[in-house]
Amino acid sequence: MSAGRPPSGTAVPGERALVRLAVDCMGGDHGPSITLPACKSFLETHPDAELILVGRPQALAAAEAWPRCTIVGAADVVESDDSIETALRRKKDSSLRVAISQVRAGEDGAAAADVCVSAGNTGALMALSRYLLKTLDGIDRPAIATVLPNERDRFTTVLDLGANVDCSAEHLLQFAVMGSALVSAVEGCESPSVGLLNIGEEAIKGSDTIKKAGELLRDAAERGHLNFFGNVEGNDIFKGTTDIVVCDGFVGNVALKTSEGLAAMLSDFIKQEFTRNLYCKLAALVALPVLRHFKSRVDHRRYNGAALLGLRGLVFKSHGSADAFAFEHALNRAYDAAKHQLLARVHDRIRDILTAMPETAGGPRAVPADPAGLLA
Amino acid sequence: MSAGRPPSGTAVPGERALVRLAVDCMGGDHGPSITLPACKSFLETHPDAELILVGRPQALAAAEAWPRCTIVGAADVVESDDSIETALRRKKDSSLRVAISQVRAGEDGAAAADVCVSAGNTGALMALSRYLLKTLDGIDRPAIATVLPNERDRFTTVLDLGANVDCSAEHLLQFAVMGSALVSAVEGCESPSVGLLNIGEEAIKGSDTIKKAGELLRDAAERGHLNFFGNVEGNDIFKGTTDIVVCDGFVGNVALKTSEGLAAMLSDFIKQEFTRNLYCKLAALVALPVLRHFKSRVDHRRYNGAALLGLRGLVFKSHGSADAFAFEHALNRAYDAAKHQLLARVHDRIRDILTAMPETAGGPRAVPADPAGLLA
Repeated sequence: MSAGRPPSGTAVPGERALVRLAVDCMGGDHGPSITLPACKSFLETHPDAELILVGRPQALAAAEAWPRCTIVGAADVVESDDSIETALRRKKDSSLRVAISQVRAGEDGAAAADVCVSAGNTGALMALSRYLLKTLDGIDRPAIATVLPNERDRFTTVLDLGANVDCSAEHLLQFAVMGSALVSAVEGCESPSVGLLNIGEEAIKGSDTIKKAGELLRDAAERGHLNFFGNVEGNDIFKGTTDIVVCDGFVGNVALKTSEGLAAMLSDFIKQEFTRNLYCKLAALVALPVLRHFKSRVDHRRYNGAALLGLRGLVFKSHGSADAFAFEHALNRAYDAAKHQLLARVHDRIRDILTAMPETAGGPRAVPADPAGLLA
Repeated sequence: MSAGRPPSGTAVPGERALVRLAVDCMGGDHGPSITLPACKSFLETHPDAELILVGRPQALAAAEAWPRCTIVGAADVVESDDSIETALRRKKDSSLRVAISQVRAGEDGAAAADVCVSAGNTGALMALSRYLLKTLDGIDRPAIATVLPNERDRFTTVLDLGANVDCSAEHLLQFAVMGSALVSAVEGCESPSVGLLNIGEEAIKGSDTIKKAGELLRDAAERGHLNFFGNVEGNDIFKGTTDIVVCDGFVGNVALKTSEGLAAMLSDFIKQEFTRNLYCKLAALVALPVLRHFKSRVDHRRYNGAALLGLRGLVFKSHGSADAFAFEHALNRAYDAAKHQLLARVHDRIRDILTAMPETAGGPRAVPADPAGLLA
């Protein structure tokens, strides 16, 4: 059942008894000053969680006395402007690298932690994760998945968000499979719907890649491996038309960043309007509770924590600028994923779908029953 | 000076004396019930404009007595769900087709109108425009450009927005040139800055196409043909980092639709919050003037009117769901473009840049001094 090490207690089927998170405490814009308070608060609300805190020991001294907590020293820190080269070749004792290593299975199939969380440099995180963990059989490229709020007051999971450009139709299918595993594990939705991001102009209904991806997805849906809704457009992300929206990393990254930009502009405009003159300021006082509730509802910190999918180990990425509240949300998401066996679910779905796929679409391949040693 | 017909009065250099707009009055979700009031209001505020109203004569009877106004009959209407095939081959007397024909230069180089405006089916509008007007020399594909608001309380012009998928680096360069001509004509900004939409992940800085487009743009900037800022990300659209953001049609369409979706969700949430209970409703009353001012500032109707660039004639596209206020804004934008010689400016810029470009980048080509007969 467990990914790496035997459960240390009586497990509810489908859940693990104890969840171990390795945290890169040095990553992100603020390092231990935000990661440590987030970890402390997380431990208090998750009695079945254990943390492995990775970083410079003197920076993590405050956590020495915490329960269910181990400190693992790492002398280097990967900075936000370090090249991938530096992260891979030169900073071999970085907190990022040591934290990821905690989820790598050893020769006995056991790993020290179930999931790794870092707010560090995305490029370095992805490169080190690929290098240290390798991809699952049947996955060509890992993907980054995040959640965005939608009009139904639920989450829309969008992937890929920047790990891959120039994706093939097969990659988009793999993203759909991994996204489905993520949503069914974390949101508890058994058959999440998948939309393929496309454009609505009649003149051209997407590129050849998108058309082929649509065929592969329809095919997978007919075989019962996916709940494929069909094409969706950019506005469907926030409408919540489907649980999952699949796109290549370039498009996903632009959609996410554009949304962040629009939200920042609107927030800025609202502030300006409510401070324009005395009447506006008084109106702001009256409207404050309403505006606060609105703000908390769309607070991007609540959506922090993107999953790196397709690796032989679970890795979650926090926004680099996260504060303690946001970083704790990333820890929560990582915990939920590990507790609900995300790794094994992704593996199983990929195996099922590749075994059933026609050879022209990249399958069937010889997928071993347990390629990642997940079920050992 | 004039694109098609001689000016009928004394022209200020760079401006035309009388601007003639051909309006497809039947297009869009609401047809004449919104296009006619918009035209009436437009005529009142633009004493140097003439309108050619195209559609079923009985539907346009109300406009018969208007000054500076001609009605041109067209029996068919292209519906929003009509195929391009239908629009091109079967509805040969559609208001859309007849309106576009008004800007096509005759054998004498003169056209009946300077610019055409329609709220009809985008695919049909683009296909008919390409078929009837042809592209300018040096332009492989027309592009759709629109404006979005930004934090600097100005406009960001984004193109392409859905006319082209799978663009080459040369296409992106052409979009940059056309966008620069548009902004310098309509916004009166002599050397507008151009950003190339890219992604910020360190792991991969865009596809090969984007990298090559960056080189072409830098090259054009060094020769003084463009003001190239460099790469921008999705959030820069609303930050207003550059005057123009260039991307392929798929990415641009997704960015635009995603923004529309987010704006709709936030607007919906604000409404919900201000009606949740009695206190919230009272707060809404107090905050109403502030909220109204905010709303007018981000009112998407003010940004209505996308330009189809790269054709031998000016065509503007209104949103299909536009109301009279929004449609009038599209008329205003079309008027500004025609008045400030957008067609001639695009032509000149394209000629200059192609003449100067190294052969490997698609140029130099034999560009006649006046390929479109613009300056006749």
